[in-house]
Amino acid sequence: MSGLSHFDDQGNAHMVDVSDKAVTARIATAEGWVRMAPETFAMITEGRAKKGDVIGIARLAGIMGAKKTSELIPLCHPLPVTKVSVDLTSDPALPGLRLAATVKTTGQTGVEMEALTAVSTAALTVYDMVKAVDKAMEIGGIRVTLKDGGKSGRYEA
Amino acid sequence: MSGLSHFDDQGNAHMVDVSDKAVTARIATAEGWVRMAPETFAMITEGRAKKGDVIGIARLAGIMGAKKTSELIPLCHPLPVTKVSVDLTSDPALPGLRLAATVKTTGQTGVEMEALTAVSTAALTVYDMVKAVDKAMEIGGIRVTLKDGGKSGRYEA
Amino acid sequence: MSGLSHFDDQGNAHMVDVSDKAVTARIATAEGWVRMAPETFAMITEGRAKKGDVIGIARLAGIMGAKKTSELIPLCHPLPVTKVSVDLTSDPALPGLRLAATVKTTGQTGVEMEALTAVSTAALTVYDMVKAVDKAMEIGGIRVTLKDGGKSGRYEA
Amino acid sequence: MSGLSHFDDQGNAHMVDVSDKAVTARIATAEGWVRMAPETFAMITEGRAKKGDVIGIARLAGIMGAKKTSELIPLCHPLPVTKVSVDLTSDPALPGLRLAATVKTTGQTGVEMEALTAVSTAALTVYDMVKAVDKAMEIGGIRVTLKDGGKSGRYEA
Amino acid sequence: MSGLSHFDDQGNAHMVDVSDKAVTARIATAEGWVRMAPETFAMITEGRAKKGDVIGIARLAGIMGAKKTSELIPLCHPLPVTKVSVDLTSDPALPGLRLAATVKTTGQTGVEMEALTAVSTAALTVYDMVKAVDKAMEIGGIRVTLKDGGKSGRYEA
Amino acid sequence: MSGLSHFDDQGNAHMVDVSDKAVTARIATAEGWVRMAPETFAMITEGRAKKGDVIGIARLAGIMGAKKTSELIPLCHPLPVTKVSVDLTSDPALPGLRLAATVKTTGQTGVEMEALTAVSTAALTVYDMVKAVDKAMEIGGIRVTLKDGGKSGRYEA
Repeated sequence: MSGLSHFDDQGNAHMVDVSDKAVTARIATAEGWVRMAPETFAMITEGRAKKGDVIGIARLAGIMGAKKTSELIPLCHPLPVTKVSVDLTSDPALPGLRLAATVKTTGQTGVEMEALTAVSTAALTVYDMVKAVDKAMEIGGIRVTLKDGGKSGRYEA
Repeated sequence: MSGLSHFDDQGNAHMVDVSDKAVTARIATAEGWVRMAPETFAMITEGRAKKGDVIGIARLAGIMGAKKTSELIPLCHPLPVTKVSVDLTSDPALPGLRLAATVKTTGQTGVEMEALTAVSTAALTVYDMVKAVDKAMEIGGIRVTLKDGGKSGRYEA
Repeated sequence: MSGLSHFDDQGNAHMVDVSDKAVTARIATAEGWVRMAPETFAMITEGRAKKGDVIGIARLAGIMGAKKTSELIPLCHPLPVTKVSVDLTSDPALPGLRLAATVKTTGQTGVEMEALTAVSTAALTVYDMVKAVDKAMEIGGIRVTLKDGGKSGRYEA
Repeated sequence: MSGLSHFDDQGNAHMVDVSDKAVTARIATAEGWVRMAPETFAMITEGRAKKGDVIGIARLAGIMGAKKTSELIPLCHPLPVTKVSVDLTSDPALPGLRLAATVKTTGQTGVEMEALTAVSTAALTVYDMVKAVDKAMEIGGIRVTLKDGGKSGRYEA
Repeated sequence: MSGLSHFDDQGNAHMVDVSDKAVTARIATAEGWVRMAPETFAMITEGRAKKGDVIGIARLAGIMGAKKTSELIPLCHPLPVTKVSVDLTSDPALPGLRLAATVKTTGQTGVEMEALTAVSTAALTVYDMVKAVDKAMEIGGIRVTLKDGGKSGRYEA
Repeated sequence: MSGLSHFDDQGNAHMVDVSDKAVTARIATAEGWVRMAPETFAMITEGRAKKGDVIGIARLAGIMGAKKTSELIPLCHPLPVTKVSVDLTSDPALPGLRLAATVKTTGQTGVEMEALTAVSTAALTVYDMVKAVDKAMEIGGIRVTLKDGGKSGRYEA
C-alpha cells in the first residue's frame, strides 16, 4: 500500500512533489491542552493582570512557531502562511489551558502541520513559563480539528 | 508570590539571570505518545523495513528539534547540549508510538525544555509522515519524567 | 478604534489574515544612518581599499537580514522577496554612513518591514565592525521613505 | 593602524580569534527610541490594557532578537546569553517609546551587539505593530550605554 | 561586461530584481560524491541494515539543507520548493557514495543552488557520521547536471 | 564494530554523549576548490576591483556558514566557535579558486565539521555568484587537512 506519500517506491524519504497541485485557499485548525495543578491554574489565570502574561507570551510563541514548521518537520514544504491565530482559554475543569490554532495559506499544500506546530509551541511555552512552580504539567490532546481547501477535501473532527 | 521566575516584579517578561548559577552536569528526560488507528499502527510498524522508516525520521527530527529549543521558546536560555537521544517504541495497546527523549548539558540551566521539544518535534513528524492515511491521530502524554543536576535537585515522575 | 490591525477584537495578537488581499507588485524603501567620530569616519571610508571593506560587509548583512524579517518580527508574514539592495554612502557632515534599502516582492503584504530590517541589520553590522575603535557610535534616522503597491496606496516621506 | 579587529593584515574579514581571552562575566546595556505622532502615542500607551499589548510583544521580540545576534551580524561570535531584559517606557515628550536592553553572559566576548540587537528588534516590532496607523514613525538614538567585564574595561556613556 | 548579475553597475552586491520574471515551473539536479577508504565503504554499505542508517540520515539532511539555501547563500532568493529528493548510491569503484539531488519549484528563479546545497549538506552529513573511522574522506564532483524552466533555457551536463 | 559513534547499540542515531569529555582548545582546517572555465576565472579575479567582490562575499558566507553547522548536520553538537577564517586564493592552473577554512573552539567536541561547512558554503556562494556566466563549474577537493585538540590526538593530511 502506497499510503505513506513521504516515501518513494523504494521506501526512501523525499519531499513529495506538489508542483502540479492547484494553488488553492487552505485552512487548518488544531487544538491541544496543558493540564496543571489547581494552584498553578489559579496562579496563572489570575496572573495575567498582575504577575505576568503567560497566555500572551504563549500565544506569540505559537504564532512564531507556525512560521518555523518547515524547519522543524523534515519533509514539510515551506509555504508563506497568510494568517495565524492562537487562542488560549482557561478551563477550570481540566484544570489548565486549552489551546487552538488556525492557519491559512494560499498554496499547494495544506497547513495542518503549521496549526499543530503552533499549538505545540504555545503549549511548550506555557510549560516553560510555569515550570518553576509545577514540573508535573502534562501536554496532550493535540490533534487536527479542521483541514480544508485541498484535493482531499474537507476534514473535520 | 514570586513563583513565575520568567517575570520581574512588575510582571514584565525577561530571560531570567542565571549568570551566578553554578555550571553543573544536567540531565532531563521527557516522554509522550502518538495514538493512531490500528491499521495505521500496523502499516508503520511493519513499514520500517519495506515502506519507509517513519521511526528513524521522527527520531532525527526530535534530535534536531532539541537544538532549536531556544529559538522556539521565547524566554529559554540558549545552551550547548552535550547529548540528545530520542527513542520511539511501538505500543500495540495504545495503539501507536511511545516517545522518550534524554538531553544532557553542562551548564547553568536545566534541559527539560530541550527534552520536551525533542519529544514534541518527533511526535509532530510522525503525524506529518502518516497523515496521508490517518488525520485523526492524537499527540499526548507529553511530560517531564526526570530532571536532575541543578540547584532545585532531582525531580522524577 | 481598530487601527492596530495586529490585534483582534479582544486585544489579542494575531498574524492578520491577508488571504483575500490581491497579489500585487510591492516595493518599499527605508533609510537610516550610523554617526561616528570624525577619526572613525576617516578610517573606514579610506579603509575600504586597504584595511577592510566595512561597507561591503554591512551591505551583505543588510541583504541577508531582510530575508530574516519574518523570523525577527513576531507578527510579520513570511514572503519571498524578489529584490533587495542596500546602499551605504559616506556623509562627512554627519560624520558617518547613510544607509538606504530597497525591497520588492510580488505578494499580499508590503515589504516595509523588510526594508527597515535591512537598514537596521546593516547599521548594526557597521557598529560591530568598528566598535573596537569607537564605542560611542549612534544609529538613528531609521524610517520608511517609500511604500507602494498595496491597497493602502503610495506612501512617500 | 590595526584598529578594525574584524580584518586581518590583508584587509580580509574574519571572525577574530578569542580562544585565549579569559572567560569572564560580561554585561552590556543599549538604548534607543521610537518616535511617533501624538495620536499614535496616545493609542498605544492607553492600548496596553484594552487594545493590545504593543509593549509586551515588542519586549518579547527584543529578547528573542538578542538570541539571533550571531546569525544577523556576520562576524559576531555565537555565545550563550545568561540574561536578557528589555524595557520599554512611554515618553510623552518624545512622543514615543524609549527602549533599553540589558544582556549578560559568561564568556570570551562582550555582549554589546546582543544588547543593540535586542533594542533594534524591539523597535522594529513597535513599528510593525503600529504602522497601520502611523507610517512616519522614526527609530533612533540606538547606542551602547554600558559595557563591562572584558579586557577593555568598563565603558559607560 | 555585465555577466555577474549579482553586482550592480558600481560592483556592489545586490539580490537581483526578479520581480518581472515569469513564474514558471523550474527544476534542477546536482550531483557529487564522498570518497572513502575501502574498509569504510564496506562498513557503511553493509551497515544500513545493522549498524545504523548513514544513507537515510544523509538523505534527510540533504532535503532539509535544500530548505536552508537562501539562509546560507547571501544573494540567493528565498523560494518555496515544491519537491526535493536526494539519492545516495554505493559505488564500489570510487569507493564511496554518489549523491544526486532533484529540486523543483514554481517561481521566478532557478533552483540549482537548492540542488547543490542538498548535495553538499548530504555529503557533509556522510562525513560527520563516518569521521570517527575515516578522517581522510574527500567530497568532490559537485556540479549541476540539469537546470530547466527559466528564461535561459535548458542546461544539461 | 563500534566505529560509527553516531549510532547506539541498536543502530539508532543519537547525538553522542560528550558530557564527560574534557573541555580543551580545538582547531580544525579544511580545504576545497571551485574549478571554472578560463574566461570565468579571468573575469572574477580581475573583477574584485571593478566588477564586484566575489571572493569577499564568499569568504563572509563561509564564516557565517560555519556558525550554522549544527543546524545543517543532524547529529552535530552545537558549540560556540571562537575563531573562523576563510581564505580564497586564485589558482590559474586549476583554473579556479582554492578555499581553506580554519575554525577554533574551546569545548568538548572537534570543529572539523565547522571547517568543512565553511568551505562548502563559501564554494557554493562562488558558484551562485558566477553561475550566470558559467554553469559548468565544479566543486571538489573538500577534505579535512588538520584536526587537533581532542582525545583522538592530532590529525594532519
